[in-house]
Amino acid sequence: MMNYPLTLRPILERAEKFFPKKEIVSRTSAGIFRYTYADFVRRSRCLSSVLESLGVHRGDRVATFAWNHHRHLEAYFAIPCMGAVLHTVNIRLSLEHIAYIINHAEDKVLLVDEDLVPLIENIQHQLPSIQAYIVMTDQPELPATTLQPVYSYEQLIEQGDSAYAYPDDLDENAPMGMCYTSATTGNPKGVVYSHRGIFLHSMTFGLADTAALSETDTVMPIVPMFHANAWGIPFTSVWLGAKQVLPGPGPTPKILLDLIQQEKVTLAAGVPTIWFGILKVLEEEQYDVSSLRAAICGGSAAPRGIIETFETKFGIPFLHAYGMTESSPLATVSCLKSYQRELSQGEKLDIRSKQGILVPGLEMKIIGKSGDVKWDGQEMGELLLRGPWIAGEYYNDDRTKETFIDGWLHTGDVAVIDEEGFVKLVDRTKDLVKSGGEWISTVDLENALMAHPAVFEASVVGVPHPKWDERPIAFVVLKEGAKGKVEKEELLAFLQAQFTKWWVPDDLVFLAEIPKTSVGKFMKRMLREQAKEHYFS
Amino acid sequence: MMNYPLTLRPILERAEKFFPKKEIVSRTSAGIFRYTYADFVRRSRCLSSVLESLGVHRGDRVATFAWNHHRHLEAYFAIPCMGAVLHTVNIRLSLEHIAYIINHAEDKVLLVDEDLVPLIENIQHQLPSIQAYIVMTDQPELPATTLQPVYSYEQLIEQGDSAYAYPDDLDENAPMGMCYTSATTGNPKGVVYSHRGIFLHSMTFGLADTAALSETDTVMPIVPMFHANAWGIPFTSVWLGAKQVLPGPGPTPKILLDLIQQEKVTLAAGVPTIWFGILKVLEEEQYDVSSLRAAICGGSAAPRGIIETFETKFGIPFLHAYGMTESSPLATVSCLKSYQRELSQGEKLDIRSKQGILVPGLEMKIIGKSGDVKWDGQEMGELLLRGPWIAGEYYNDDRTKETFIDGWLHTGDVAVIDEEGFVKLVDRTKDLVKSGGEWISTVDLENALMAHPAVFEASVVGVPHPKWDERPIAFVVLKEGAKGKVEKEELLAFLQAQFTKWWVPDDLVFLAEIPKTSVGKFMKRMLREQAKEHYFS
Repeated sequence: MMNYPLTLRPILERAEKFFPKKEIVSRTSAGIFRYTYADFVRRSRCLSSVLESLGVHRGDRVATFAWNHHRHLEAYFAIPCMGAVLHTVNIRLSLEHIAYIINHAEDKVLLVDEDLVPLIENIQHQLPSIQAYIVMTDQPELPATTLQPVYSYEQLIEQGDSAYAYPDDLDENAPMGMCYTSATTGNPKGVVYSHRGIFLHSMTFGLADTAALSETDTVMPIVPMFHANAWGIPFTSVWLGAKQVLPGPGPTPKILLDLIQQEKVTLAAGVPTIWFGILKVLEEEQYDVSSLRAAICGGSAAPRGIIETFETKFGIPFLHAYGMTESSPLATVSCLKSYQRELSQGEKLDIRSKQGILVPGLEMKIIGKSGDVKWDGQEMGELLLRGPWIAGEYYNDDRTKETFIDGWLHTGDVAVIDEEGFVKLVDRTKDLVKSGGEWISTVDLENALMAHPAVFEASVVGVPHPKWDERPIAFVVLKEGAKGKVEKEELLAFLQAQFTKWWVPDDLVFLAEIPKTSVGKFMKRMLREQAKEHYFS
Repeated sequence: MMNYPLTLRPILERAEKFFPKKEIVSRTSAGIFRYTYADFVRRSRCLSSVLESLGVHRGDRVATFAWNHHRHLEAYFAIPCMGAVLHTVNIRLSLEHIAYIINHAEDKVLLVDEDLVPLIENIQHQLPSIQAYIVMTDQPELPATTLQPVYSYEQLIEQGDSAYAYPDDLDENAPMGMCYTSATTGNPKGVVYSHRGIFLHSMTFGLADTAALSETDTVMPIVPMFHANAWGIPFTSVWLGAKQVLPGPGPTPKILLDLIQQEKVTLAAGVPTIWFGILKVLEEEQYDVSSLRAAICGGSAAPRGIIETFETKFGIPFLHAYGMTESSPLATVSCLKSYQRELSQGEKLDIRSKQGILVPGLEMKIIGKSGDVKWDGQEMGELLLRGPWIAGEYYNDDRTKETFIDGWLHTGDVAVIDEEGFVKLVDRTKDLVKSGGEWISTVDLENALMAHPAVFEASVVGVPHPKWDERPIAFVVLKEGAKGKVEKEELLAFLQAQFTKWWVPDDLVFLAEIPKTSVGKFMKRMLREQAKEHYFS
């Protein structure tokens, strides 16, 4: 076979040649912006040419600090296709961590949304590697800013060369992107994506047996483009020429539902928190969401009850998936096998609320207390992954050796696997409650609580216990209508009916809100501290 | 990203772990044989272990000389996964060419079907590299044979080690298979497939926007496993755990229709000749073919009329594709774009009877008399391909330099491409008729003829002409009912109504049958000789 490198260039050029008429819809501060793939590729080429004239060379890191929109999409291709590295900075990190990762990656140029400029201004003096700031604004003029030197994205594009030719000699193992992932303690850890990894991951996302992303889809990544490349959806969408809907700055559930309804979105992807929010609005207002053929949900486990409500009440098919920043991210997808389609609705829902089976292209192991776990849906172990789009290290980071061992990514996720190979996450290794020498899954308890009609959100953490080592404590946010009407005893009894006695939390605390991480996951560390204060102060 | 090689081992092991219950159906001389993927992988491991004990090492070539059946499928994985090279020998080649390619590949072991043993016996003394013959028989005892040394496949499997562990250190660029393709003149030319190429090709076949092969499919490759790896379908099917139906020795259209009906085949793949034969039977007998979601057709262009008949009369959706041995083979697929679905039935059929747009992962060019052709559906040029599953050379063959130039495969196929990027093959470079300095597509004329209700098959070739350089002559096989009732003048008038005057053939000859190559393509060389004799003797 030819010695042909797997890079992003032919992905972009396939869209340019075969899908120039297809549409990209971008929500901006100035309203809905629409253009074609032809425009998109032309502007991407312009962006590459001006970055080059700003001194960006192969291997240089170019950071983005932005929401999901068309300019960010241009950067997604313009930067890697010219041989530079797209560093998508998480806008929800603390300023301290933002400064840390920009310095750690040694970013040379920073593309920043107008509304996010003030955040960067706060730390500008801490960013010696940045040689140019490019502000992505919808206004004709640059906003007043202390950033220096500063350029207008649109003015640069106007000066750009739309015939800029992408190199065809990039190494497939060359870095194309970077994303930092939060650590339990300490600074975020950097994951470097290669052209080859993203090429292969992008193909996997289009398989009929995964998300089946297709040219016929209208795709809306709600998952941020600063979070694991929006799960790689922009890359696959461009390759296949799918219509894209990018929901722009600060999308609320209503904004997202408006876009789904107006643009007839067929495929949307987000973390459970996003879907909870959308569900809340759907239960109060009328929206036509009949175009949706799949609501992809990953990042954390979605409770069975939520999936059921989405499907039975609103006719939105839920597609549960699993992955992480280190796995590009797609690792498992929960599609029913052909012979499982004859099961009862309840049985099917049980299967589909698991994280699913391994996608083609990867390998996995689940390692318990004594080697590979049994495929019995019971024995817990840590999920290990390897494959061509699994990271092999953290970028310049000593913590590499804690996570990447003997050629496998140790995900830190505790899982069980059933007879059919469906993986179900039961916890993070660090969140598992170790009570009396046995393991208790906090996620199982949370999902059970969230299936109670009065519960909006629930989180369970372990607190130190003199006799049992650790014991679980539950934190619950009630739905608006249920506040003050439901007692903790009722919820604990609800759990007692479903779990063995020693799994039931020792206490249950009502909160107004569960603290969340920058990517919408429950911040269990904070809850544990709160619990410790509550019980031991 | 990890340094993870793309090989067949994880493809096989995914099936073993996640789809052990799924079924493989194999038509044998002893009737229908059924087993599970668990059995299939177990026996594949046994086969590898016995091949190893017969002296097969990494890189050694092991030949198969066989129909499409479960043992051949076992060889498809057992040989490459142990690091050896699967050489699928075309059983329809001349004995001279069979001996040539076995010697050229230096095959060490030959697996041969019982009914094909006599062919190999004829050339046994010409095969010095073969150290062992393994006969794949459905009988308990080996047939009487002069082959030496000779083994029974089933007896070897019984002695094999079902726990044989496949190496995980194979190089992704290592050869996994070989297939020889016929040359216009001279010996067949060898194409070597790498693990990486087949891994990537297999993924492409599962994309929603190509064949969308899925676990839910029941797949029947009619295209022989000795021909371009049955278009790679066995690899993708195993990876995804699809039910497979292998039609066994000498499948007739009735046998194929029985299998489609009984096994509820959803996806079948074959060359136009196969589909013509099936159509003929369907027009006379009742079959339930409602399970078929796609009839994949490649190898040669299928005429629009055939596609229309399949779809409108029998409700079988046709999926036109293009590729060649050198391209693994999938290169283009003719799926409608989303916005083309609103066109009229006739317009849609016009598009779908083209070879389609480039599949994700490849690059293409069409080079005419003055560089890249216009995307106008008119200008003809040679189709060039490059990508990770495109061959880079012929195996130890001086003819490499004629076909692989500047990093591109020169397909020898003449094509036009329309505004939407749909490629339409108009001829082979060597078959184009050059008349008065202009090109005439023999394929266009053939398709027009085959759309006539009286015509079963048609082939057009160029013959030398003193004034115009070349002129087209048509050869036609009439349908049974039309024989003796249709004159050549009627058919030529039929063409005159559709083509500019100078395209219409100078003569039209009725034949009882059109001579075909070993893979079912029209043998134009023979027709040209026949025409020359006819006009110049």
